[in-house]
Amino acid sequence: MTHSQRRHNLKTKISAAGLDAMLVTDLINVRYLSGFSGSNGALLVFADDREAVLATDGRYRTQAAQQAPDLEVAIERAVGRYLAGRAGRDDVGKLGYESHVVTVDGLDALAGELEGRNTELVRASGTVETLREIKDAGELALLRLACEAADAALADLVERGGLRPGRTEREVSRELEGLMLDHGADAISFETIVAAGPNSAIPHHRPSDAVLTSGDFVKIDFGALVAGYHSDMTRTFVLGNAADWQLEIYELVAEAQRAGREALHPGAELRDVDGAARQVIADAGYGDHFGHGLGHGVGLQIHEAPGIGATSAGTLLAGSVVTVEPGVYLPGRGGVRIEDTLVVPSDTPHHPGQTPELLTRFPKELAIL
Amino acid sequence: MTHSQRRHNLKTKISAAGLDAMLVTDLINVRYLSGFSGSNGALLVFADDREAVLATDGRYRTQAAQQAPDLEVAIERAVGRYLAGRAGRDDVGKLGYESHVVTVDGLDALAGELEGRNTELVRASGTVETLREIKDAGELALLRLACEAADAALADLVERGGLRPGRTEREVSRELEGLMLDHGADAISFETIVAAGPNSAIPHHRPSDAVLTSGDFVKIDFGALVAGYHSDMTRTFVLGNAADWQLEIYELVAEAQRAGREALHPGAELRDVDGAARQVIADAGYGDHFGHGLGHGVGLQIHEAPGIGATSAGTLLAGSVVTVEPGVYLPGRGGVRIEDTLVVPSDTPHHPGQTPELLTRFPKELAIL
Repeated sequence: MTHSQRRHNLKTKISAAGLDAMLVTDLINVRYLSGFSGSNGALLVFADDREAVLATDGRYRTQAAQQAPDLEVAIERAVGRYLAGRAGRDDVGKLGYESHVVTVDGLDALAGELEGRNTELVRASGTVETLREIKDAGELALLRLACEAADAALADLVERGGLRPGRTEREVSRELEGLMLDHGADAISFETIVAAGPNSAIPHHRPSDAVLTSGDFVKIDFGALVAGYHSDMTRTFVLGNAADWQLEIYELVAEAQRAGREALHPGAELRDVDGAARQVIADAGYGDHFGHGLGHGVGLQIHEAPGIGATSAGTLLAGSVVTVEPGVYLPGRGGVRIEDTLVVPSDTPHHPGQTPELLTRFPKELAIL
Repeated sequence: MTHSQRRHNLKTKISAAGLDAMLVTDLINVRYLSGFSGSNGALLVFADDREAVLATDGRYRTQAAQQAPDLEVAIERAVGRYLAGRAGRDDVGKLGYESHVVTVDGLDALAGELEGRNTELVRASGTVETLREIKDAGELALLRLACEAADAALADLVERGGLRPGRTEREVSRELEGLMLDHGADAISFETIVAAGPNSAIPHHRPSDAVLTSGDFVKIDFGALVAGYHSDMTRTFVLGNAADWQLEIYELVAEAQRAGREALHPGAELRDVDGAARQVIADAGYGDHFGHGLGHGVGLQIHEAPGIGATSAGTLLAGSVVTVEPGVYLPGRGGVRIEDTLVVPSDTPHHPGQTPELLTRFPKELAIL
């Protein structure tokens, strides 16, 4: 889908909502709709057939012309305010704005630009995010590439003996990050988690000088970035030999993760997807040791809609890309998390019960290294 | 300064502003005041001598206890809403909130928690940022370390012949990033800019497969992260031999940068600091080719207060840490930027006219490699 088609979908959506234009100030949404990836930018999309206007500052003059050659580019520092003023001068009646992104002070600034105009600022939170939730073919291709880079990097790390007693978490993290770049990532997707031994009980541990030791769990949560799209995968290994308690919680988390994956059907209640995995862990008596949600959407952001948790409202959409990542964490001892990124399938009349496409393909059987 | 002392300073400040407590939801501000560095957290600071409350979610239970051992930690997913409700139950009258951070929708959520309470939400934008603008001794020590790691990495890169015709921008970027980690950085501070030849005319160019060629400008803008603190430096080199136009704009930018550094006095109007450098470039007839501000504060964020631009309001404070980074960019030909990170000195009666401490010490004479 081209950026122009995405903007067309937004036009349809805002027209249906009774808006005459939409001011997009979230940078990821600006990128999704225009291709422009600079650190300062905003987009004014009209409901009628006028072409959108992209605003950015002087640093990005050349980049904006390259990335969004089909758009008028206005060079202004205060991009949101400028485009609000522009909407006022262009006689926009109802101007949607991203009330989940625009700050309280920021709204004042927008309103200030519209003084004396007949333009009304109307809340339109999540409008672009909803479009982004269903990935188009081009996005899926990039998400596959990002997940492949991560898969290949972890396989390479294991193959070259990178996970061995005596190394520090930091050394492992750095090698894995380098391997992602070797295997096609533009950058890392987020700060890599390498957590050994008792540190594996910390869900979001930052790699330290802690040394990998025989008998340790090593939990690795990492991702690759390709053309703006993220991957997200967690695997947990054991070094040397596994104790019974380690085997027990590993198998438990693997079973919960399987249950979560199998619950990925379009139309499923998000909280039921979470519940499918959570119930497995609770039934085994470890419910108190799984303190986070089951998963989240992945795309141009590492965390995006939908959130999949015990209190999430809404349903899963066909073509969305989400993680399934249950964990069990025993403070002071160790923890396990197993996480995949998957595409929610379509349930068409002719193809009922399709299984989700698994994007992160590194094996999930417990590897004792 | 301990986190407790920083919170004490905030208490003094909010008391003076007539607030009974302050809800801090900006994650960098939470880190500054508590030491907690997770990706979800908020802090409620009381004006009286009650200790602050930190809220975060279950992923960070262990980390919060380690990083903020002196604080009560509440485990909640919706951290801001929880602490607003807590303020209501604790009979806070005037509750300051970060109106430059809280979104329009977020404010609704906070207000919802306070229904039926006598707690009033009061705008308090920039309160913590103002405290952060003046760096304490511990912060300066970390900023020095971050800048030293960047200095050492660039020196190492040049020494090992890393900047030579035939390499791609991406290869250079990756090697430099690896060298920063070798020289003590925890991570890179922001996406490294390596821009060769005509790409150097793009102020914020992303490293590509473009090949470094003899006669090219190579502009490198990069930073190291140490314990949360950033460094920021730009140097521009010439490969092979320099043409007259290259020597001319290099000397011009160097002169403008010197003028900018010499303008760093406490009490100086920010726009005058910008003007000191800008005037040099304008006088030489290149004013249209310097399209961005002169500099910005550096600390826990790579861009923080104060902004130093042609329209910036306010004055420079002793003990703040800022960049000075003029540039001249000739589209299609090439560009030069020279950037340092410096500490604004104190002008005390006994030590008038102190010069700013230069944190980024890599030489600025044009190096023809």
